[in-house]
Amino acid sequence: MADLAPTVLKKLTKKELRILERQKAAVAAAGSTLTETYGELPLIQSKERLDYVYQLVKDLNLELQGESFWVRGYLQTVRAKAKLAFITLRQETATIQGILHECDKVSRPMIKFVAGVPKESVVDVFVTLTVPDSPVLSTTQKEVELHVEKFFVVSKALLELPFQVDDAARSDVVVKAEGSTYVNVGLETRLNTRPLDLRTPANQCIMRIQAAVGQLFREFLIKRDFVEIHTPKLVGGASESGASCFTLKYFDQDAALAQSPQTYKQMACAVAGLERVFEIGPVFRAENSNTHRHMCEFVGLDLEMTIKDHYHEVLEVFSDLFIYIFDGLKERYAKELAIINEQHPFEPLKYNKPSLIINFEEGVKMLKEAGATQEPEDDLNTENEKWLGRLVKEKYDTDFYILDKFPLGVRPFYTMPDPNDKRWSNSYDMMIRGEEIVSGAQRVHDPNLLIQRMNELGVPQESMCTYIDSFRLGALPHGGGGIGLERVVMLYLGLGNIRKASMFPRDPKRLYP
Amino acid sequence: MADLAPTVLKKLTKKELRILERQKAAVAAAGSTLTETYGELPLIQSKERLDYVYQLVKDLNLELQGESFWVRGYLQTVRAKAKLAFITLRQETATIQGILHECDKVSRPMIKFVAGVPKESVVDVFVTLTVPDSPVLSTTQKEVELHVEKFFVVSKALLELPFQVDDAARSDVVVKAEGSTYVNVGLETRLNTRPLDLRTPANQCIMRIQAAVGQLFREFLIKRDFVEIHTPKLVGGASESGASCFTLKYFDQDAALAQSPQTYKQMACAVAGLERVFEIGPVFRAENSNTHRHMCEFVGLDLEMTIKDHYHEVLEVFSDLFIYIFDGLKERYAKELAIINEQHPFEPLKYNKPSLIINFEEGVKMLKEAGATQEPEDDLNTENEKWLGRLVKEKYDTDFYILDKFPLGVRPFYTMPDPNDKRWSNSYDMMIRGEEIVSGAQRVHDPNLLIQRMNELGVPQESMCTYIDSFRLGALPHGGGGIGLERVVMLYLGLGNIRKASMFPRDPKRLYP
Repeated sequence: MADLAPTVLKKLTKKELRILERQKAAVAAAGSTLTETYGELPLIQSKERLDYVYQLVKDLNLELQGESFWVRGYLQTVRAKAKLAFITLRQETATIQGILHECDKVSRPMIKFVAGVPKESVVDVFVTLTVPDSPVLSTTQKEVELHVEKFFVVSKALLELPFQVDDAARSDVVVKAEGSTYVNVGLETRLNTRPLDLRTPANQCIMRIQAAVGQLFREFLIKRDFVEIHTPKLVGGASESGASCFTLKYFDQDAALAQSPQTYKQMACAVAGLERVFEIGPVFRAENSNTHRHMCEFVGLDLEMTIKDHYHEVLEVFSDLFIYIFDGLKERYAKELAIINEQHPFEPLKYNKPSLIINFEEGVKMLKEAGATQEPEDDLNTENEKWLGRLVKEKYDTDFYILDKFPLGVRPFYTMPDPNDKRWSNSYDMMIRGEEIVSGAQRVHDPNLLIQRMNELGVPQESMCTYIDSFRLGALPHGGGGIGLERVVMLYLGLGNIRKASMFPRDPKRLYP
Repeated sequence: MADLAPTVLKKLTKKELRILERQKAAVAAAGSTLTETYGELPLIQSKERLDYVYQLVKDLNLELQGESFWVRGYLQTVRAKAKLAFITLRQETATIQGILHECDKVSRPMIKFVAGVPKESVVDVFVTLTVPDSPVLSTTQKEVELHVEKFFVVSKALLELPFQVDDAARSDVVVKAEGSTYVNVGLETRLNTRPLDLRTPANQCIMRIQAAVGQLFREFLIKRDFVEIHTPKLVGGASESGASCFTLKYFDQDAALAQSPQTYKQMACAVAGLERVFEIGPVFRAENSNTHRHMCEFVGLDLEMTIKDHYHEVLEVFSDLFIYIFDGLKERYAKELAIINEQHPFEPLKYNKPSLIINFEEGVKMLKEAGATQEPEDDLNTENEKWLGRLVKEKYDTDFYILDKFPLGVRPFYTMPDPNDKRWSNSYDMMIRGEEIVSGAQRVHDPNLLIQRMNELGVPQESMCTYIDSFRLGALPHGGGGIGLERVVMLYLGLGNIRKASMFPRDPKRLYP
């Protein structure tokens, strides 16, 4: 932990240093105290089963007035004088105030001991629930508080933390306000000690929103008869083109990490005949892109389905899917969204029902009319993508839309060409707030056309034989797409950086923690 | 596909060769026929949206008698004479008979064309639903059949398939019966062309049971307030001990593929304070083990939860979890289980409520009493593990049980030692039919004990600093475990080889498809 201390000490104010010294002295004085009512517990090692009654902070309410029970939580704050101490306990996103004042149950040495316990330690308190004279402003539980009768340390935190959770949890608006003297805990500092950073209420909720998007994705697809599959991440050769692939030795063979489940989900859907499949799993990209929206490992929400005669059958599923996800977040996760909004204010997402679809050609026209430089068959760069997002928002009042019929030249070999015009393809991206979150297409299910496209694009075929050959077994016409989970979370919540939407992000420079 | 043909030609009987020649001649004669009622369709490329009415084979019933509609499916069989042809169409696990007889709508050239279409091609048929005089024995739809009026090939299969789906779908009992002359399609042959192998009804259902186990796992845990997480698979250094790790270059750093989400799920649960987390994701093991139950990549169903004072709190969750999964499979997937049972007969799983827990020491005693050689503090080898499974089944009438309190010496460094006896640890395995499917434990949440254990076991600490240090931030006591998804599926279904429970298995020799 030696590497953590300097980060902190640099940032400490004189006042903070005074507090630190006082805490150090208190802890040193306390030694490894253990009395019947306070002290440091021995390591919880399952020596016996006590089955004490513990309550969750979020469940506490006026009905429990006068009841006694245990609470285990992180010690968020402690303020103490000789005869009186206030503490804040935190569990996930819920906080509550605890009070110790000198009486027959609470001794002065006990208060002194509590005063010296480092913030963010895990503590067990035995308490009686009481009602404060006036609502507590600083905690999420405002109508109730806890009178602490016993106080034990379960797991002691360092005295010098790399940053304070309070600082990391403060509203962006407050931190960035003119003349603000608050510490701005930078993203690198946070990510270096990510488990501590994840303790902030906003981050607790961002992780829950991430889980929710995955769960809503699954729920919707299972209702529509999709089957969940798991395809290998270790593949022979590169999964798409060989570029930007992590490679490794697989015993005596050459292997790569799958850049997407593309070829496998196609085989499962169209050749094995599962017809409708989805997968949630890691996707690996060895791209040396240090941007706000690229990671080297992210979670792909993939789907692939058979179609009867038109890939818009897939677009209809995607449209309904995203409406289901957006509605679900709004309806079921209002509390989490409100907590995130408190720290990171964002505009609620606007979306149409059904989703807006515009053609690439139309998008280029809109951009040009607005004064942008955009070749008709070039891909959109990030700037134009965002610009088009703003134009679409102005014209159609939606933050989510589908951009259809991309130029064939900018799409992978397995994309079905447009049957009427060789410039275009049966492919699409989906956008939230002007940034891409889905890329998809009808796929080529004919082996000869597949080989022709690979030749045209110079894609090597050696490691793709089993994939190409599988279409010679009889293949169902099909299409699909892949959603970047963290991108959806970042853009829905307006976080501005994809790393904030990932629990332990991976970029070209970050492999730890 | 050149590599596939020889496999087949070797196996063809004289009769089959005659049929093949006839088919070839028929196809050659047909050329690329396309008339109004039959022929080869041009590539389905989303040229127009026809919105024909298609029905699913599984949904067809007597109420639709006399109705006309389209069906798209794999052409499983075709038997034709000059004026009459019988076909079998298959969708997922459902099959139905179709009939073409010469009439004003069905010409003789049309019947000839149908006769020449290779089996397993994808076809579109326009049909009228009729009721046969006597039930059809060879299809899953027995009370209804289809009179075919139009017949188009959507995607033509090879004439020479590596094996016939009929052969791959035949009951183990029939294939292995004394004097059986049926082709036994070997596992290697199947896996070499896995997308074709997956077309058998049993494999369609095995993949659905795999999905079901994952879904039941999630359902149960979400009800119990667990949060789904996604942890990185690219990690700095080895995730456990460095042995049996796939390693690779991550830009200019050394990386490995995570052998389990162990350290990350612990940080999320105990240090970040999410308290109850689960993850479903790939797990990588570079073990050169060519056994029936090892793979180099498999799906881990991981969970980690805080405990108050005893790791048996985790065991109670696991017990309820497996009962939920087993009950759920029985109640919701009876049809799939029956279809698998038809090809691969297996005994229904027996399990107690709550689950049986026996101590390792007791297990060793049972083994010794039965005559086995087993040192008290050695791990169980596969043979003794199975033997103990049989003894437990005899004594307690259960195929599922928990073996608790393993010797400390055979468990990883992060396992909490038993507080009373240094020989043991707070760790457990769970078994189905005498084979391990879960390994888990209370974890060490004290950084000093963690370092001590790493030193004792010679585990290098360099790449583990962020993990070890995280416990200095205040950590909640916790425990958990990891379930091998494919092992659960293999053992529940009695498949005998884990590769059969994986869509695209990876073993030391297999990296394709």
